[in-house]
Amino acid sequence: MIFRERTDVGKAKDMFLAEIKGTEKTELLPTGSSIDRVLATSILAPRNVPHYRRSAMDGFAVRSAELIGASPTNPVMIQIADEMTEGTCTPVNTGDYVPDEADAVLMMEDTISIGDMIEVRAQVHPGKNVGEIGEDVRKNEIIFNKGHLLRPCDIAVLASLGIRNVNVYVKPIVAIIPTGDDLLPLTEDDVPPPGKTLDINSLMIGEYVEKWGAVSRYCDIVPEDEQRIEEAIKSNLDTDMIVVSGGTSVGDRDFVPHVVEKLGTKLVHGVGLSPGKPTALGVADNVPILCMPGYPAAGLVALFAFGKPALRKAGNIPDIPGITVKAKLSGKIMSREGYVSYARVILEGNTAHPLMTAGAGILSSIAKSDGFVIIPENVEGYEKGTEVDVVLIE
Amino acid sequence: MIFRERTDVGKAKDMFLAEIKGTEKTELLPTGSSIDRVLATSILAPRNVPHYRRSAMDGFAVRSAELIGASPTNPVMIQIADEMTEGTCTPVNTGDYVPDEADAVLMMEDTISIGDMIEVRAQVHPGKNVGEIGEDVRKNEIIFNKGHLLRPCDIAVLASLGIRNVNVYVKPIVAIIPTGDDLLPLTEDDVPPPGKTLDINSLMIGEYVEKWGAVSRYCDIVPEDEQRIEEAIKSNLDTDMIVVSGGTSVGDRDFVPHVVEKLGTKLVHGVGLSPGKPTALGVADNVPILCMPGYPAAGLVALFAFGKPALRKAGNIPDIPGITVKAKLSGKIMSREGYVSYARVILEGNTAHPLMTAGAGILSSIAKSDGFVIIPENVEGYEKGTEVDVVLIE
Repeated sequence: MIFRERTDVGKAKDMFLAEIKGTEKTELLPTGSSIDRVLATSILAPRNVPHYRRSAMDGFAVRSAELIGASPTNPVMIQIADEMTEGTCTPVNTGDYVPDEADAVLMMEDTISIGDMIEVRAQVHPGKNVGEIGEDVRKNEIIFNKGHLLRPCDIAVLASLGIRNVNVYVKPIVAIIPTGDDLLPLTEDDVPPPGKTLDINSLMIGEYVEKWGAVSRYCDIVPEDEQRIEEAIKSNLDTDMIVVSGGTSVGDRDFVPHVVEKLGTKLVHGVGLSPGKPTALGVADNVPILCMPGYPAAGLVALFAFGKPALRKAGNIPDIPGITVKAKLSGKIMSREGYVSYARVILEGNTAHPLMTAGAGILSSIAKSDGFVIIPENVEGYEKGTEVDVVLIE
Repeated sequence: MIFRERTDVGKAKDMFLAEIKGTEKTELLPTGSSIDRVLATSILAPRNVPHYRRSAMDGFAVRSAELIGASPTNPVMIQIADEMTEGTCTPVNTGDYVPDEADAVLMMEDTISIGDMIEVRAQVHPGKNVGEIGEDVRKNEIIFNKGHLLRPCDIAVLASLGIRNVNVYVKPIVAIIPTGDDLLPLTEDDVPPPGKTLDINSLMIGEYVEKWGAVSRYCDIVPEDEQRIEEAIKSNLDTDMIVVSGGTSVGDRDFVPHVVEKLGTKLVHGVGLSPGKPTALGVADNVPILCMPGYPAAGLVALFAFGKPALRKAGNIPDIPGITVKAKLSGKIMSREGYVSYARVILEGNTAHPLMTAGAGILSSIAKSDGFVIIPENVEGYEKGTEVDVVLIE
């Protein structure tokens, strides 16, 4: 396959992302159902925390002025009272209301109880062991900014503030269009006849799309027919993104990038990505379109390199980096200059074994690899023994 | 709070994990519903892939022996035939069945068609562009090992092999028991009276437990009463793990570690973890019990340090490392010698701002932090400007 064009991966990604506007659609969800969702509005604290002056210790609420000069040689005795007035103190537990008359809490351990009196052997600073109103969270303070991805610990914080609903962005919808005359849907009859291939890409793409925070719309297999492909894309321009699988190679029967150009703008066809070179990127009616190669391993790499960041941007979802582990290569990895190469490796403890992807070994190369070693364009490869970052395949 | 005991975090974790046996309970699930589940049996390929000799190119199936010596100056002409016999070739597309008589496929580009003949200008190696039976996947080869965590790409591979059900481990059940006289359930009345605290920990623990691959069993709040705590733990010894929140400090009213010792073995009480020092670990009736501090920030750290690896081991789920990013500290972080410190930071691009967690600022410290800088026991802290690994709070 020969491409006149070969755009840098970084440049191609930038061009693609520049066309994507984050969704403005929002929905109100119960706080408990909003994990992994993105806030569409900032959240202000509806009240102070603590909302009363709170004791941080088990001990006695006191007036610090009455203890000035207290020391082991000059202890001060104070009366314990249920209701605090001048010259008395009152017992408090951690979390208790500190009476308005008190300005400090003495730790239990720093006092000696003698009948209904305590002996105090140290002076205490005003404010000691007292959580002031709003010390933790001030009323109307921003607790979470618009665009924040909600974690379980955040849900707990929201719940503790009595915030029972949150306004989040609607999940983007991603249409998945498989193309190819040789494709068969995944059905009960699982051994495809010669020349036919089961459409496993739709399932793979769809499950990743859901994992990354969007909703999958599975479309029927479209044959390699320009008009049918055009119809399929047109009828999904109501989504936030379209992923077309297959039909991107340069050949008589590869109509997809051509159709994209006809309906909108073809940004890129052919990228410096290995595997994944025949990827095309475009946009029509403000809907980003990723045309990924039909070979599962190449498609998967294109999906990680372009699909994930695009989907994230469409949904205003922070693009969190993948999980990376350090490992030492047990063998050499070659790569092509001018291409960002995704070399598949098997991890065994701290060793990364390069996967030999001979012949058409596409299916097994996915199943067997734990992660990618991503080799930049300007690097020829890595020697055996090199310490590399392995991005785990999620 | 003074603890006589202070076990190293690493040692405490090892002691705890040593008591945990992975579940042996399994269930059969439809392949499409098995993402993020763990295989309980290895999976063998039920058939060869390809299951026929498959063309890797668009071109002509040929007998390589008939083309020996072919060159631009000495081209060989061969007859195109629908059914291949000696001295003929037949057109094939990528993925097509290669006739038994052929041993190679010529690329279309390397031939010139002249009427019903092709002119061949280069010889071809036997096997060229032919995917042999089982080249990608051999029948009965192990595709996935027992213990493999299923990813979306794996599901696609299984589907393509016609494997419609998989045997996976049953998710472990984790009982969550909140304790404390001051606790109130999260209800409609969201402003707790002085001295009372909303039980946000149960929700936080429960959501993490589900995220990490287990099932949460939420239990009622148990008051600080030895017998009631004992009953609560006893009635959950049918689970795979128990997390008790609160009641771990050394004090008159902290019964939890005592009850664990009575029912089974208290392994550790007091760990070199900051925050999270009052954590206790134990086991009863083979059920691991994590007693975590009631303060949310300390509890969260204990949950990450001990709860996650324990739950993963109980469910035979590979313990994948967290997401880590490199960042430069904008200020100094102090830590206590002898303690593994989880310092909370806010990320801003490549800068990590240490969070000042003054006073009882527990709630806000969780809401505001993006990640932890984990400082080992033997390090005093990090200076401003140090490049650190930030573990994102998931």
